[in-house]
Amino acid sequence: MSIIVQKYGGTSMGTIDRIKNVARRIIKKREEGNQMVVVVSAMGKSTDELIKMAYSISDAPPRRELDMLLATGEQVSISMLSMTLNAMGYDAISFTGPQVGVHTMGHHGKSRIMDIETKKIEDALNDGKIVIIAGFQGVNENDDITTLGRGGSDTSAVALSCVLECPCEIYTDVDGIYGVDPRLYPPAKKLNTVSFDEMLEMASLGAGVMHARAIELGSKYNAEIYVASSIHDVPGTLIKEGDSNMSPMEQQAITGLAIDNDELMVSLKNVPFDMNITAQFFSDLAKKSINIDMISQTAPVYGAINISFSAPIEDLSELRKILYDFMEKYPQVEMDINKEISKLSVVGIGMRSQSGVAAKFFQLLADNNIPMLMITTSEIRISCVIPSELRDTAVMATADAFDL
Amino acid sequence: MSIIVQKYGGTSMGTIDRIKNVARRIIKKREEGNQMVVVVSAMGKSTDELIKMAYSISDAPPRRELDMLLATGEQVSISMLSMTLNAMGYDAISFTGPQVGVHTMGHHGKSRIMDIETKKIEDALNDGKIVIIAGFQGVNENDDITTLGRGGSDTSAVALSCVLECPCEIYTDVDGIYGVDPRLYPPAKKLNTVSFDEMLEMASLGAGVMHARAIELGSKYNAEIYVASSIHDVPGTLIKEGDSNMSPMEQQAITGLAIDNDELMVSLKNVPFDMNITAQFFSDLAKKSINIDMISQTAPVYGAINISFSAPIEDLSELRKILYDFMEKYPQVEMDINKEISKLSVVGIGMRSQSGVAAKFFQLLADNNIPMLMITTSEIRISCVIPSELRDTAVMATADAFDL
Repeated sequence: MSIIVQKYGGTSMGTIDRIKNVARRIIKKREEGNQMVVVVSAMGKSTDELIKMAYSISDAPPRRELDMLLATGEQVSISMLSMTLNAMGYDAISFTGPQVGVHTMGHHGKSRIMDIETKKIEDALNDGKIVIIAGFQGVNENDDITTLGRGGSDTSAVALSCVLECPCEIYTDVDGIYGVDPRLYPPAKKLNTVSFDEMLEMASLGAGVMHARAIELGSKYNAEIYVASSIHDVPGTLIKEGDSNMSPMEQQAITGLAIDNDELMVSLKNVPFDMNITAQFFSDLAKKSINIDMISQTAPVYGAINISFSAPIEDLSELRKILYDFMEKYPQVEMDINKEISKLSVVGIGMRSQSGVAAKFFQLLADNNIPMLMITTSEIRISCVIPSELRDTAVMATADAFDL
Repeated sequence: MSIIVQKYGGTSMGTIDRIKNVARRIIKKREEGNQMVVVVSAMGKSTDELIKMAYSISDAPPRRELDMLLATGEQVSISMLSMTLNAMGYDAISFTGPQVGVHTMGHHGKSRIMDIETKKIEDALNDGKIVIIAGFQGVNENDDITTLGRGGSDTSAVALSCVLECPCEIYTDVDGIYGVDPRLYPPAKKLNTVSFDEMLEMASLGAGVMHARAIELGSKYNAEIYVASSIHDVPGTLIKEGDSNMSPMEQQAITGLAIDNDELMVSLKNVPFDMNITAQFFSDLAKKSINIDMISQTAPVYGAINISFSAPIEDLSELRKILYDFMEKYPQVEMDINKEISKLSVVGIGMRSQSGVAAKFFQLLADNNIPMLMITTSEIRISCVIPSELRDTAVMATADAFDL
């Protein structure tokens, strides 16, 4: 028998009926002769509710204690799914992340998986059991419960498929990967396959379907990831190595478009032009695990520079502390925090072989009177920050122009 | 500095405001120079809600998975209380039962504490932290999460005070121990002290304030337990070894009255008179950890006997299976399950030295036309099963007659 790792997200686990639906899907694959390892997220919006509870007590709950709280969400899910499978006549057993030995390191709330023990899983599979594992969580070297950050259950599932050397199937509330989010652009087309590189760019840009670290991991171990609907029985999207499966001639310049509304932009004016000051500032941010995304810096004028960067909105309170400390040290610096921004990105392996994509994209925005507040690019991606209010206009124009 | 173990129940932890109140009480004792170890139950009715969720999936959820689910209730509480203490400026750290090393054995849902590791607790206390520990839960030899059964948080707290060799304070939604539940008999008197023996009888009879096993443990290790209100600042009740603190002359025959509505009575008629059959039957019940309480058996007539016994209503589904198996083997047996019963018990160390208590009690019930369906007695207790509908009449009459 071969092992399959499946992952079901919060929406798929949102109600008793949906959990029963998930159980039936697991049983179907099981009856086809597979050994099943299933990773689940917390039910519905329960993680959001737990976060709300925590923040009703404190603006800055200790992250160790927040992890302790959040981990209960998946623990509820795994036991509910296991009970459902047992009630349907299948022997199932649930494990928390710490229990099964998902070892992590790094900051609470943003931990990274170091390794996963397979003994308990393999023993249970050999006993004929369906194994249910809590996604999103693990245990660190102090025996503290840790969480992997938003969408971490994807990472848990892919990591498990790597250590168990088996396929990974991610079931979610969308039918697969689209070039553009269909909620933003209804005529959006579904992709049959997409490369790790493209997917990685889209995920890290907030395309939302998959957690970036999960794709990184899949790419590193070359573990193909199948993403499909947990509700509809329609073909999903296979994320795999290499170029897209189209021949270069047909290849589109742009495979996907992503929007990220969860970032803010900080502008610092009149910063002393001294590499040590800049380096120290970004090092302070890194120490707090604040993921700076885009950075731009102007040329020095009269010994001063302007720096802009974007960062996740969720890190605002930590970020503010560092900014205030910085301004206390350098009182001449002027600061502006803009939360009314969206990051619009276009991604495609085709960019490597086709020129003029950037020019076409910029012209498109100009034609639609959409100002670009910041720009960054990679080999297969162009991102720009635009005012939030112009987001929908920008998505429509881009998706139309690049036939997504 | 000396250590104090405090325990706060679900009602005391029911809302954010109540958790803040609990935190302030902990801080007060801390500021008086004590090292604080705090055991908490799940918030409000959350355990009931989790049980309801489980039973919405299955009539008989696997107990291992049910424990996995229920343990989340306390995990939410400990993190919330720890966050609250941290927000108030006190360094606090929370531990689940498995994390801190509460080792248990026995059946899921009814596990017993074997030992508790103290290293993590002592390390955290020495670091100046307030230590918050999830009650009701532990971990067994398979590394599975276990629960101790209803009210198990009391047991967790007393067990901790035993291993840490320190006082134990149980804070609850009542002001202390009363001779009769004030909800049943408003003029009820609060006791300043009560002996372990009396308390043990009352607890095992469903007096509700304290978990029987907690008192057993306190008695075994002679660890005094102080029970008081988590809301009102009024003196509570000290449970300690020995006779009540009144001199023998003043000593009342009856210290307390307890009502248990959570039992059912099973009557089996026409059971073959064979000790092996009876022994096998009760051994089957024991294997499923069904706590049989009262048992009565008639003398044999024509080679058949009648057996009655009472058992917890929560064990009904397990109980039914065993009864049906039994009747399949012995089709001549007639069975009746009566859920409309209450168990009324009177308890008092005074019974040891005063005679005629039973006679007075039985006469009282007879005068009030209350039939006794079953009777059992111990050295300091008389219990009888009565029809539920006559419960209030019986409580009033007894409390009045014995001046409780």
